[in-house]
Amino acid sequence: MKYSSGILEDAVLALNSLPSVGKKTALRLILHLLKDDTGKVDKIVHSLQDLKENLKTCTSCFNYSDRDTCDICLSPERVKTTLCIVESVRDVMAIEDTNQYSGLYHVLGGVISPLNGIGQEQLNMHTLFTRIKENQIEELILALSPTVDGDTTSYFISKNLENTNVKISTIARGVSFGGELEYADEITLGRSILARTPYSLTID
Amino acid sequence: MKYSSGILEDAVLALNSLPSVGKKTALRLILHLLKDDTGKVDKIVHSLQDLKENLKTCTSCFNYSDRDTCDICLSPERVKTTLCIVESVRDVMAIEDTNQYSGLYHVLGGVISPLNGIGQEQLNMHTLFTRIKENQIEELILALSPTVDGDTTSYFISKNLENTNVKISTIARGVSFGGELEYADEITLGRSILARTPYSLTID
Repeated sequence: MKYSSGILEDAVLALNSLPSVGKKTALRLILHLLKDDTGKVDKIVHSLQDLKENLKTCTSCFNYSDRDTCDICLSPERVKTTLCIVESVRDVMAIEDTNQYSGLYHVLGGVISPLNGIGQEQLNMHTLFTRIKENQIEELILALSPTVDGDTTSYFISKNLENTNVKISTIARGVSFGGELEYADEITLGRSILARTPYSLTID
Repeated sequence: MKYSSGILEDAVLALNSLPSVGKKTALRLILHLLKDDTGKVDKIVHSLQDLKENLKTCTSCFNYSDRDTCDICLSPERVKTTLCIVESVRDVMAIEDTNQYSGLYHVLGGVISPLNGIGQEQLNMHTLFTRIKENQIEELILALSPTVDGDTTSYFISKNLENTNVKISTIARGVSFGGELEYADEITLGRSILARTPYSLTID
């Protein structure tokens, strides 16, 4: 692509550095911004600067926050003795969107993955065990990805808490609600048959 | 989507204001930027500010440029008596990429579109006729999108130059009908410049 302007080219290349934004898409976005007169450029520039300078990580659960402690950890309505262990901030958002969970979170920042050189030292793992001990955590919900690495991490955490009274559970695995049974993968379907639950006539 | 941070939400909404960037995509991009340690945020912020403050429009052809007159208009190698009329800067880039054209350009900034309230006053049309007269332009290549509005604009320009000696041609209709010029592939676009046909006021 030949650019008539170095400034234009720099802007396209800057956006092109984002994942799944190709040069043509980047150019389209830049030309859109050039034609815009509603201050989108200012908003983007300002919010990115704000993000870089002011976004904090909650010192307790490692969720992103505007303050040192996040709203979830500060909320008096949340059950302080239950922790849900997730890989990333996106998982916190996904679970919060369900409105089904009222405890606190702990963001690991990934899962143990020996092949990628990620051990417990690279994750928020030490702080998790300190937190469990210091805050008298009673229940732990492991909400990690159902992958080999996720399972390894779940095993590591539960093994470390073997001699404590902390009740550990994982989120239910099975066929998704509203999904067609024939499209469920064999492993999920097989496991969901093995892990069948008693049928109840009342909806809870 | 529930955000743990107002700063995070603002950044997501700012990117979400771009065309074809949904909230989930915006969140993915922002989380990518938060994990990045190669200075992508700075690059994006700086290049967008630069774009807003320093990008100029060529006073002659209305292409984007770093200076008051663009590189194409300044180049001693370009044929100064031939003008290629295009709708947008993207069309200039598309034609430049073919390496088949050595004249100058004139960016109209759109096409005449009565339904959208765009007349010749909203376009760089007056400057085109002034430029043709003052610079002894000998040849005009109409490279507008093969749509009703594009054809109307071509007709308007050629009608205005009816009693002059300017030779007018349109790029060959190798480009598909009803398609936008910027999506044409380079070979088709290049061939269609070489195989330009004399413009006729009657539709054949």
